[in-house]
Amino acid sequence: MIRYGMVGGGPGAFIGDVHRMAAGLDGRMRLVAGAFSSDPERSRHKGRELGLDPSRVYESYADMASWEASLPERERIEVVLIVTPNHLHFEPARVFLEAGFHVVCDKPLTTTLEDAEALCRLVADGDRIFALTHNYTGYPMVKEARALVREGRLGDIRRVAVEYVQGWLSTALEDTGHRQADWRTDPARAGVSGALGDIGTHAHNLVRYVTGLELEELCADLSTFVEGRRLEDDANLLLRLGGGARGTLTASQIAVGEENALSLRVYGTDGAIAWRQEEPETLWFHRPDGRRERRRRGHEWLSDPAQKASRIPAGHPEGFIEGFANLYHAVADAIESGATHAVAFDFPTVWDGARGVHFLERAVESARTGGWVDARYAPPAEPAGSAA
Amino acid sequence: MIRYGMVGGGPGAFIGDVHRMAAGLDGRMRLVAGAFSSDPERSRHKGRELGLDPSRVYESYADMASWEASLPERERIEVVLIVTPNHLHFEPARVFLEAGFHVVCDKPLTTTLEDAEALCRLVADGDRIFALTHNYTGYPMVKEARALVREGRLGDIRRVAVEYVQGWLSTALEDTGHRQADWRTDPARAGVSGALGDIGTHAHNLVRYVTGLELEELCADLSTFVEGRRLEDDANLLLRLGGGARGTLTASQIAVGEENALSLRVYGTDGAIAWRQEEPETLWFHRPDGRRERRRRGHEWLSDPAQKASRIPAGHPEGFIEGFANLYHAVADAIESGATHAVAFDFPTVWDGARGVHFLERAVESARTGGWVDARYAPPAEPAGSAA
Amino acid sequence: MIRYGMVGGGPGAFIGDVHRMAAGLDGRMRLVAGAFSSDPERSRHKGRELGLDPSRVYESYADMASWEASLPERERIEVVLIVTPNHLHFEPARVFLEAGFHVVCDKPLTTTLEDAEALCRLVADGDRIFALTHNYTGYPMVKEARALVREGRLGDIRRVAVEYVQGWLSTALEDTGHRQADWRTDPARAGVSGALGDIGTHAHNLVRYVTGLELEELCADLSTFVEGRRLEDDANLLLRLGGGARGTLTASQIAVGEENALSLRVYGTDGAIAWRQEEPETLWFHRPDGRRERRRRGHEWLSDPAQKASRIPAGHPEGFIEGFANLYHAVADAIESGATHAVAFDFPTVWDGARGVHFLERAVESARTGGWVDARYAPPAEPAGSAA
Amino acid sequence: MIRYGMVGGGPGAFIGDVHRMAAGLDGRMRLVAGAFSSDPERSRHKGRELGLDPSRVYESYADMASWEASLPERERIEVVLIVTPNHLHFEPARVFLEAGFHVVCDKPLTTTLEDAEALCRLVADGDRIFALTHNYTGYPMVKEARALVREGRLGDIRRVAVEYVQGWLSTALEDTGHRQADWRTDPARAGVSGALGDIGTHAHNLVRYVTGLELEELCADLSTFVEGRRLEDDANLLLRLGGGARGTLTASQIAVGEENALSLRVYGTDGAIAWRQEEPETLWFHRPDGRRERRRRGHEWLSDPAQKASRIPAGHPEGFIEGFANLYHAVADAIESGATHAVAFDFPTVWDGARGVHFLERAVESARTGGWVDARYAPPAEPAGSAA
Repeated sequence: MIRYGMVGGGPGAFIGDVHRMAAGLDGRMRLVAGAFSSDPERSRHKGRELGLDPSRVYESYADMASWEASLPERERIEVVLIVTPNHLHFEPARVFLEAGFHVVCDKPLTTTLEDAEALCRLVADGDRIFALTHNYTGYPMVKEARALVREGRLGDIRRVAVEYVQGWLSTALEDTGHRQADWRTDPARAGVSGALGDIGTHAHNLVRYVTGLELEELCADLSTFVEGRRLEDDANLLLRLGGGARGTLTASQIAVGEENALSLRVYGTDGAIAWRQEEPETLWFHRPDGRRERRRRGHEWLSDPAQKASRIPAGHPEGFIEGFANLYHAVADAIESGATHAVAFDFPTVWDGARGVHFLERAVESARTGGWVDARYAPPAEPAGSAA
Repeated sequence: MIRYGMVGGGPGAFIGDVHRMAAGLDGRMRLVAGAFSSDPERSRHKGRELGLDPSRVYESYADMASWEASLPERERIEVVLIVTPNHLHFEPARVFLEAGFHVVCDKPLTTTLEDAEALCRLVADGDRIFALTHNYTGYPMVKEARALVREGRLGDIRRVAVEYVQGWLSTALEDTGHRQADWRTDPARAGVSGALGDIGTHAHNLVRYVTGLELEELCADLSTFVEGRRLEDDANLLLRLGGGARGTLTASQIAVGEENALSLRVYGTDGAIAWRQEEPETLWFHRPDGRRERRRRGHEWLSDPAQKASRIPAGHPEGFIEGFANLYHAVADAIESGATHAVAFDFPTVWDGARGVHFLERAVESARTGGWVDARYAPPAEPAGSAA
Repeated sequence: MIRYGMVGGGPGAFIGDVHRMAAGLDGRMRLVAGAFSSDPERSRHKGRELGLDPSRVYESYADMASWEASLPERERIEVVLIVTPNHLHFEPARVFLEAGFHVVCDKPLTTTLEDAEALCRLVADGDRIFALTHNYTGYPMVKEARALVREGRLGDIRRVAVEYVQGWLSTALEDTGHRQADWRTDPARAGVSGALGDIGTHAHNLVRYVTGLELEELCADLSTFVEGRRLEDDANLLLRLGGGARGTLTASQIAVGEENALSLRVYGTDGAIAWRQEEPETLWFHRPDGRRERRRRGHEWLSDPAQKASRIPAGHPEGFIEGFANLYHAVADAIESGATHAVAFDFPTVWDGARGVHFLERAVESARTGGWVDARYAPPAEPAGSAA
Repeated sequence: MIRYGMVGGGPGAFIGDVHRMAAGLDGRMRLVAGAFSSDPERSRHKGRELGLDPSRVYESYADMASWEASLPERERIEVVLIVTPNHLHFEPARVFLEAGFHVVCDKPLTTTLEDAEALCRLVADGDRIFALTHNYTGYPMVKEARALVREGRLGDIRRVAVEYVQGWLSTALEDTGHRQADWRTDPARAGVSGALGDIGTHAHNLVRYVTGLELEELCADLSTFVEGRRLEDDANLLLRLGGGARGTLTASQIAVGEENALSLRVYGTDGAIAWRQEEPETLWFHRPDGRRERRRRGHEWLSDPAQKASRIPAGHPEGFIEGFANLYHAVADAIESGATHAVAFDFPTVWDGARGVHFLERAVESARTGGWVDARYAPPAEPAGSAA
């Protein structure tokens, strides 16, 4: 079992539990250390709750990095999971990479492009694995969508409609002491973007993952509807992608009544696909003649990546945790393989992360200047075979 | 029964049959005259097929207007239905209005804003009724959506997502002799716009009808994917509406595998609605707490407009023809009432039509210049109470 | 245009309007006479509302039959539509048949098997057409389902699940003066059965139409949930069909919150189909490997019967009236063809009606005795090629 | 962490993995011992794969029971999970209970009612917990359905429609060496029933759990469609439940194209609910006026049991494993509480299991005799508060 540590994920942070359930699901990774909170008492409390050896519950991520590095190789953590707010991605990631640990980091990668690029170089110069948790690419039927595109079943891609809408920030939840809302609406902790950074980057990455196309131009309209909020809570974008494809990207957290409605449609010359995260086991394939095929997880005629990402038979719903666990499964494969950079494994990398940060900066620029902007980008030091 | 004549709707024009079925559904309107085709033989053939008196099947719309005007009042047509390609809306409309007939005209109103405004003035100066067949506003559950907005159930409107996508023009169907495709892709007959004019104007009008908000700014990306095609077949727009609302509008005819997928979602501060034309009997109302209410046509707790637009009990599906017939029902009410201009009746008017043409011209301008454009507009001579 | 008269369909009887809209939709049939109510004043009122010549609005169906028969052939009605409560099907049908008119009659055919069989013989001995309005078989995608079965796409049929549930009789609506509820719950007017007769016969006929299989045995559980009601309002049946197929049939009018939920699933050795009346444009075809194909009305690769039963393009919803109109379309074809008995035309016949009445009698017998009963039956005087 | 052992779940047995993922999901239970296969080499292989101490991988369940019982209390297993084919439930359950261990056992409880009743007495006479893995009751929205019934939101229950259909046994899969198909179709290992035992018992238990009603009478039609198969693969039942409710229960494994389609609808005097296992996060509540409310997991206005059974926010799909894990969560609560019999905890018990076995025996009897049978039953030694 791969031993891992966690930075963040203290009391009240639901995403920490998700990471722990996902990392542990297949019995391949085991939590052995943590710096769960910047408040040492809260961190110790979480450590006790999780049954950890108290000596491996740390007061800070820096302590954890240095102390774990000093432990015998068979005992120390192999990989760290960074599940903190955005502004606390860069430094922990840098420190753990430099201490020789693999890193799994929440998205968006960093709050500035400069930091993102620094991480790219650090990863490229070392031999550690760096995975970014764009977890929605872990769903089997997303992998099937990608496989259909790659097999040419859609022909040339013409249009993309991606949308990620939620309603939970329709009111000033951040003023009620709600921890999740608090940091996400604070530029100091979230970065230059609100909704687009929090969920729009997932949408952006999903388009890249499924279509293999990169952005070329974008035009963004960012709005803040809730009074007093300091970052946008609603974003609408026009996209121009490689190969002449066009599309729209919407990210909103004031879409009242929506839960976690990430959806993707891709239309090509020869076929189309449609997928919705809230019903993740179903992928629609549209044929030009109007027939639609409903493809479902768990069948043996699916593509290899879709089949390998499946644990239980068709009709026994797998969900968010299982999808997330597929990312950890790939990370575990990569770690066990001893691969460097690991771009051949099926998880998002530091370079995907830099692309996400660049996308955010360009969207903010477009909204500021009120028009189309160039969105082409190549992150530094990217290994061959890494791009979408 | 109200006697009507028809311009267009000859052999092969499916929309002519739809108008006849819709106008006749409630037994209030009866076809008695027609100039069904610019080819006199085809026109006569259609007249025979429809069992018309041959003396009232005309060689041209101009003949029809002058001859019918000369008939005794109890015999001549009261209203004309213009169901020709776009470039043949203006002249027939003008001629029949001037000859003293009510007019029902297909959308978009005209191929130029100048023509549209001329019709606005003509209608304002006379006492004839002018209805534009934005038929999708005839659906009961669209009327319910509008009622919910008007009752304040959504609070202040924040975002709108309207989409009208079809796949039938994914290939160069116009090169195969397909009549419907032929004129729709020809600038001389369709006007300045392809997909946006053909279906995007429905989407634009639907937003206005349901939300009561007018466009203020737009940014459009228009694309032509099919080689050799002379008008755009795909359009993506960012919208800024009155009251600070934001949104997106998509119209595409190259969305492979889509049939007639017009959909609307409107999110406010207090609730949201969602409606899809392909399942027109269902309207979703989203509450902020995540509960969703599925409202269906045919129930007695619906708003008055929704109830009045319903013919048969809940669960017995009404469809496109019934929705279209509701527009004719309102026109018949207006004619029988003797109303002038009839802005109090529930059908789209010449001023709605001018707004649609203006919208097209601004979208084309935005696409040409590559950025945001002002989209505010007030059509000339509009009576009080007419705007959305 | 075929001239028709109507028996029943007076004020407040929604089904009369449906018949008139359906019969008139394609411009092939025209209402010219009627005995709309047993109350002459109400009948005259309806006649005026419908714009009929007062001399052809009759005080009784018997008057209508004899008077119309005396009119010149080019003037008199050709066919009568009987849309009265069940107990008023037999006598009018007999009288009009004997007077030489074609008959279209609502279901169930009669209130006793004896009457049903008498009508069978009368039709067989004459040359008039007799159609029974099991209108749900008029839907294009029901015809597609039947075509798939006939083409062998399902292989041998193994199981059938048919359900027709409504909620409108969940309370004692008949005690409130509700006309539709009143006669349907009265044994003197409805016959031996309530829910099963009113809607279960549609379900029974739908199974026969789609599968081509006849019932062999049944076991019925009939219940009356609303206190004081005299006929069952809920029915559950086990079915054994020809060829060894098994299934269930449910008809309920106390299924709270349901509108008009008729649905059918048929599973064979090689495939399955599923269809729901409330979304009638979609037919699912399940392949054994788990792929599901969504077939929709309006496409050119559909079976001939499905295509012919379609009026407008895919994605422009057709509904209940259009489905009903397909039955009238077939009746008009048959009348114009001069066919005798017309079993080759695509509408239910008097023999289908007798099967329905027999089914009801056997279900009541099964419920009474509490067990399985033989349900095989061949109606008298049935022409070759008539059975499902 | 609670230490558990497993009987069964060796190579190729997918359900073993499901139990392990479910039991481990919340970090409360840890696998420390196992007798995974009757083949010692396969058992050892599985133990190694799972990283177990080889000394605690046993050659037989009997060895495991006696050896574990001899270990120090702080080391030995506390509970055993029995995930073997049906004929290997009784003996292991008995042996482990007698050795003083808690038991979690797969359904159906046993292959004979005699064995089931023996286990009931054994549990009643001891102080060990016995849980039966009717895992579908673990879904949050099933718990919500039950809560709505208990709160009286449905009024008096009138009708129930439960269905569990799959297609995977449409062909003679058992003849191809398919392990899962092999034992399920073998009377020596599966017991008196095929589809009804395998999946129909889930349906039966689900009805009891949600409605709180027990069966009073049933009439069953059991069929074997696949040639050479020795147990039924298709079952249709009429149900009469307590309080006068009526219903149908279908279980089929030859429903081509179906995956794992368990669904439940319950109609009362005041409302209805509908739930489908393949989309487990959604529960429909039908109001009598036709409005339907879509309730979803993860909201704070849900009933307590539904909220407690939820791990992550709404819109992040939880699935089968999470539902299953809720059962283990309740078992862990019960074990930690030191409760005896634990009927107050939210998991199915040995008495629920005996009811399931009795249901199977009565259904087989009904099918044999061809009619209604009495299905009332009270299992022996049942503590107060245990029944549905």
